[in-house]
Amino acid sequence: MSDNAIDVDSGTVYLVGSGPGDPDLLTVKAMRLLEAADVVLHDKLPGPEIIDMLPEDRREDVGKRAGGERTPQSEINERLVELAREGNAVVRLKGGDSFVFGRGGEEAEYLAAHDVPFEVVPAVTSAIAAPAVAGIPVTHRDHASSVSFVTGHEDPTKEESAVDWDALAATGGTIVVLMGVGRLPDYTDALLEAGMAPETPVALVERGTWPGQQVATGTLETIVDARDEAGISPPAITVIGDVAGTRESIVDFLRNDYGTAEDEA
Amino acid sequence: MSDNAIDVDSGTVYLVGSGPGDPDLLTVKAMRLLEAADVVLHDKLPGPEIIDMLPEDRREDVGKRAGGERTPQSEINERLVELAREGNAVVRLKGGDSFVFGRGGEEAEYLAAHDVPFEVVPAVTSAIAAPAVAGIPVTHRDHASSVSFVTGHEDPTKEESAVDWDALAATGGTIVVLMGVGRLPDYTDALLEAGMAPETPVALVERGTWPGQQVATGTLETIVDARDEAGISPPAITVIGDVAGTRESIVDFLRNDYGTAEDEA
Ligand SMILES: C[S@@+](CC[C@H](N)C(=O)[O-])C[C@H]1O[C@@H](n2cnc3c(N)ncnc32)[C@H](O)[C@@H]1O
Ligand SMILES: C[S@@+](CC[C@H](N)C(=O)[O-])C[C@H]1O[C@@H](n2cnc3c(N)ncnc32)[C@H](O)[C@@H]1O
Repeated sequence: MSDNAIDVDSGTVYLVGSGPGDPDLLTVKAMRLLEAADVVLHDKLPGPEIIDMLPEDRREDVGKRAGGERTPQSEINERLVELAREGNAVVRLKGGDSFVFGRGGEEAEYLAAHDVPFEVVPAVTSAIAAPAVAGIPVTHRDHASSVSFVTGHEDPTKEESAVDWDALAATGGTIVVLMGVGRLPDYTDALLEAGMAPETPVALVERGTWPGQQVATGTLETIVDARDEAGISPPAITVIGDVAGTRESIVDFLRNDYGTAEDEA
Repeated sequence: MSDNAIDVDSGTVYLVGSGPGDPDLLTVKAMRLLEAADVVLHDKLPGPEIIDMLPEDRREDVGKRAGGERTPQSEINERLVELAREGNAVVRLKGGDSFVFGRGGEEAEYLAAHDVPFEVVPAVTSAIAAPAVAGIPVTHRDHASSVSFVTGHEDPTKEESAVDWDALAATGGTIVVLMGVGRLPDYTDALLEAGMAPETPVALVERGTWPGQQVATGTLETIVDARDEAGISPPAITVIGDVAGTRESIVDFLRNDYGTAEDEA
C-alpha cells in the first residue's frame, strides 16, 4: 500500500521504539529506519528476534560495558552526539516505546542541548501489548476508566519513594507495573495496606510477544506464589485490576500464539 | 528484512489498532492484515490517511448509522460475528490501540461468548504517540515515575463519576486525558481543587501525526484560554504534568514534521 523508500538525514538521531519484541509489531517506519540507518544503538530489551535482524556491521550494543556493568546514560548520550556529528543517520533503538520508562526524554534533551536534530518514532509499548496478547485489555468500560503505568523497581517502604501506591490504589483504575518482578511482594503489600481487595485479579506477563512468552495469574494475595511457581523472571509486566480477570473468559478463543515457539522447537 | 506473506484465517476476527494516524506508524502486522483481510470494519478515528488506503469494496464504516447517530456497540458486535460465521477473515480496525479506551475488551468478550476465534494486534496508542511527536515524553526520570491515562468525557462534578481526579493528582505522575477537549475546564478545575500547582504545564495535541496536527500549551490555569485561541477540537490528547514543559526545551531540534502538510499544500 505504500512503497519502501525512506530518506534518512545524515547527522540526525532517530529515537525509535522497537515495540514489545515480535518483529511484526515494529512500525512500518521503524522497520524502514532500521534498514536505512548508518548505525543502530541498542541494548537487549528489543528482544532476540529484532536484535538478530540488525546487521552486525551497523549495530552497537550499548546495554553493557566490557566489564559487564550497565553503560551509564551519559556515555550513551555522548556517543549519540558523536555519531551524529560524524554525519551518520543514527537510530537509537529502545524496547517498547522510547518515552515510556525508556529515557527517551533525557536523550532528546541532551541532543537538543548539543544542537543535534532528532526525530521521535513512537512505538507499541509492552505496558499495553504484553497484557493485550495475553487477553487483558488495560481499560474496559465495565471495569476501568483509567490505567496507570508505574515503575516497580523502587522500594515502596522508602520514605522518599517517588511512587505513591496509596494514590494509585485510590484511582480505582488498572495499575500496570513495569520492572516489577523482584519487588512484587513489596508493592502488592502496599496496595493491600492501601485498602485494595485481596481478591483483586493480578497477572504477570513475561517476555510478551517473544517466543518464550509466559503468563501467571492470581490475586493480590496469591500472585507472589504464582510468580514463584511459574518461575517468572524479568522482563515482565504486572497488571493489577479487574481487567486481569478478562483473560479467563476469553483465552479459549484467543489465537495469539506467542510463547509456543519454544515448546514446538 | 522479513517477507510480506501473511496467512489470515477465515472465520477469525483480528482486533487491530491503527496507531495514531500516520500510516507509517501502523505495525508491519496491521499493514499486512489490512492487505489480506476479506473485510475491514472501521470508524473515522484511524484518520484520513489510513482510511483512504482501505480498498472501497472490502471496508465497512461502522462509525455512524444512516441517520447520523453513532452505531451501537451491540450492532458492531453482531456484525463481527456474522461476518466471521460467513467465513471471512475480518479486521476490526480501531484508532490507536484497541484496548485503550477502544472497546476491544468488550468485542473480545462478545466474540468468545459466541465461539468466534480472534487475535489481538496491539498498536501505537495516541495517548503516548501524540505527546511524543510534539516533544513530550509521558514519563521522565526527573519528573514522572508514573503516567495515568484517563477518559475526560465524564462530568467530574457528578457524584457517581468513575474518575477520581483527587487520586490522580495525588499520584504525582503525568496525567494523560483522552476525549478531554470539551470538559477541559471541569477537570482542570478539579485538579486545581485537588491541590495541583496552578503553574503545572499542560499541553493539548490535536490530530497527533495527522497532516493537520496542532499543539497548544499552557498551565492548569491558562490552558482553557490556549485551547480556545488555538481552536483545538477533538480528537485531541491533554497532557498534564512537568513533562509537558519538556517540549519547550527540545522543540527547536525536533524534526517530526506532522501538521505541516496542510500548510505546504
Ligand atoms: C526500562 S523499562 C522499558 C519499557 C519500554 N520502554 C516499553 O515501552 O515497553 C523495562 C521494562 O519493560 C517491561 N517490558 C519490556 N518489554 C517487555 C516484554 N516484551 N514483555 C513484558 N515486559 C516487558 C518490563 O517490565 C521491563 O522490566
Ligand atoms: C475512544 S478514544 C480511543 C483511543 C485509542 N484507542 C488510542 O489508543 O489512541 C478517542 C480519543 O483518543 C484520542 N485520540 C485518538 N487519536 C488521536 C490523535 N491522532 N491525536 C490526538 N488524540 C487522539 C482523543 O483523545 C480521542 O478523543
